[in-house]
Amino acid sequence: MSARRPVIAFAMPESVRERVFPARLMREYETVGEVAGHVTEFESAAARAILDDVEVLVTGWGAPRLDSVLLGAAPRLKAILHAAGTVKPYLSPEVIDHGVRVSSAAAANAVPVAEYAVAMIVLAGKRVLPIAHRYRELRDDFDVEAGFPELGNFGQRIGIIGASKIGRIVIDMLNAYTFDVVVHDPYLTDVEAADLGVTSVSLDELLRTSDVVSVHAPSLPSTRDLVDARGIGLMRRGATLLNTARGEIIDQEALTRRVVAGELFAILDVTVPWILEPDHPLYASEHALLTPHIAGSLGTELGRLSGSMLEELRRIARGEPLAHEIAPDLLAITA
Amino acid sequence: MSARRPVIAFAMPESVRERVFPARLMREYETVGEVAGHVTEFESAAARAILDDVEVLVTGWGAPRLDSVLLGAAPRLKAILHAAGTVKPYLSPEVIDHGVRVSSAAAANAVPVAEYAVAMIVLAGKRVLPIAHRYRELRDDFDVEAGFPELGNFGQRIGIIGASKIGRIVIDMLNAYTFDVVVHDPYLTDVEAADLGVTSVSLDELLRTSDVVSVHAPSLPSTRDLVDARGIGLMRRGATLLNTARGEIIDQEALTRRVVAGELFAILDVTVPWILEPDHPLYASEHALLTPHIAGSLGTELGRLSGSMLEELRRIARGEPLAHEIAPDLLAITA
Repeated sequence: MSARRPVIAFAMPESVRERVFPARLMREYETVGEVAGHVTEFESAAARAILDDVEVLVTGWGAPRLDSVLLGAAPRLKAILHAAGTVKPYLSPEVIDHGVRVSSAAAANAVPVAEYAVAMIVLAGKRVLPIAHRYRELRDDFDVEAGFPELGNFGQRIGIIGASKIGRIVIDMLNAYTFDVVVHDPYLTDVEAADLGVTSVSLDELLRTSDVVSVHAPSLPSTRDLVDARGIGLMRRGATLLNTARGEIIDQEALTRRVVAGELFAILDVTVPWILEPDHPLYASEHALLTPHIAGSLGTELGRLSGSMLEELRRIARGEPLAHEIAPDLLAITA
Repeated sequence: MSARRPVIAFAMPESVRERVFPARLMREYETVGEVAGHVTEFESAAARAILDDVEVLVTGWGAPRLDSVLLGAAPRLKAILHAAGTVKPYLSPEVIDHGVRVSSAAAANAVPVAEYAVAMIVLAGKRVLPIAHRYRELRDDFDVEAGFPELGNFGQRIGIIGASKIGRIVIDMLNAYTFDVVVHDPYLTDVEAADLGVTSVSLDELLRTSDVVSVHAPSLPSTRDLVDARGIGLMRRGATLLNTARGEIIDQEALTRRVVAGELFAILDVTVPWILEPDHPLYASEHALLTPHIAGSLGTELGRLSGSMLEELRRIARGEPLAHEIAPDLLAITA
C-alpha cells in the first residue's frame, strides 16, 4: 500500500450501499480513497473497467461472491473491507490464499446485539414485561415481590452460551453489574475465562443454575440444537431464555412447551423459521417477547458498520495494519 | 467509636427488616456489631432499655421519626445507618445538630434505577415494544426501518434531566455506549458536566433535540411540572419520555395527549396518582409502557441496601469514616 489514496470500489446492491453508507461517510470515503466506481458483479466489461486498478474493494450485504472471477478482474486487489457482519458466505478460500487481506465490520456489528442482550437481561431480572402486563390487566396495585419472588438484578446468575465476539462484549458489559456471570464455550480455556472475569461451566450446569440464559454461539452444524429438549428441561422455573443468535441453536418446540406452560420466559429475536407461522403459540404467550431480528445493526446503527470500514481504509492509506483482519484459520469456527 | 464491636439496634417494622436483611447478612451484622435488639418506636420502656447503650441505629423504610425522642432514649448514639434510599422524611434537624452522623443506602438504591433507565433507553432506541407489538399483530415480516426511520442506538441524543445520584450513574453508564448524552441540571456547572463527559444544555434544548428524555430530578416543590405542557410540546415526534423519578415532575396530561396521538412514546415507572385510575388512556396505548414503581430496589436488590449499610458498620468498627455520610447542607436539595 502506498502513501497515496488507495483506489477503491464499492461492490454491493445500490440499495444496500445507500442504507449502510450515509452521505456524510461517503464523502469521507471519497476523501481517503480514490473511488473508481460502484459494481454489483465482476463479469461485465463495465465492471471490469472499474475493477482494473482497484486496490481496496468495499463490500456489504448482497455483495457478489468474492472468488477467482474477482481476482481475475481486479489484479491489483490487496484488501476487501466488508461493511457487514458476516463475510464468510461471500468469501471463497482462493481470495485468502491469493494474499488478499479481508476485514469485516463484525466487531462493529456485534455491538448493537450485545447492547440489546444486556438491556434484555436487566429487563428479565426486573420481570418488566410480565409485571407491565399484569398491571395493565389489573389496573390496580399489587404485590410484585409476592408474584415474582426472585425479582431483581443483584447477584443473579447470567449464563452466556458462546464466548463469541458478541458473547465477549456481553460478558464485558455485564461485569459492570452485580451479576454472577458464567459462560459455556468449548473453545474457551479456563485462563481465558478468568481473563474475561467469568467462570467457565458445563452447559448442563449453566442451564440448571442460571436466572437468564443468553445465547451467543455461532450457527454451525455443531451448534444445531446445542440446547436440546433435555437442556431446556434443566432450566430453572422462572428463568429466561434470551436468543439473539440463531433459532437453530435451541430446541424451539421444547422451549415453546415450557414457555406456554408458564414455566420459563423467552425473549426471542430469532426463531425457526425466521418469521414464525401465524398460528405459533408463542405469539399469544405473555411469557414470550418476540421481535423480528432487530437486535443486529439497523437504521442508524448501519453507520457504525461503514464507519468502522472507513477507519480500516484510513489505516490502509497510512500503511498501518488492519484492526479487524480476519485470520484465515478463524473462518472455520466463526459464523 | 472504639475498636470493639459497636452496640447496634434495628429500628423499622419487622416486616421491612425481614425483607431487606437476608439471614446471611443478619449473621454478619451480629458478627460486626453487638445487637442490643429491635425496636419499632423510641418511647416504651422496652425500647428505651434496648436503646440505652446503642451507638449505631440501623433503620429502614417505615422507621420511627428520628428526633429528640430518639436522642433522649439513646444518649450514646453516634450514627444512624439507613438501609433505604431516602432518609430525609424520617430525619429531624436536631439529630444532625446533635452530632449524630447519618449514612444512607441512597447510592446503593440508585443502582437498580440507573440500570433500569439504561436498559429502557436501549430498548427505546431499538423501538422494541412497538416493533414487538406490530409483529404480534401482523404475524408476518415487515420493514422495521421504514416503520421506524430513526431506529437504532448509534449517535442518538439522550437527554438526562437532573444530575442527581441516579442521573450521574445513568450518565456514567451511557458513556460506554455511542450516544450523544446531554444533561440539564441547574446545580451542575459546565466544569462538572465536562467531568461527567456530557454537555450541559438548557431544558428547552434538551427537550427539543433528544431522542430519549430520561427524568432523574428529585421531587421538590421547585421541580413540580418541571417539564410542563410547553416542554412536552417541544419534544421531537417519535421521541421517548422515560420517567423513573416522580410523576409530579412532568405534566402527565400533556404527555398523555401526545402519547395517545402516537407522537411520543412514554415509559413510565411513576405516575400521578401512584397507581393510575383504571380508565386512564395510557393503559390502552401501544405507545406507553407502564410499570408500578419497580425500577427501584426490589426483591433480591434489597440485599444491596442492607449490604451497603453493613459496610458502613464495618467502617465504624474499624474507626474509618463513613463512605456515604449525608452532609447536612445537602438535605435541602436531595429528595
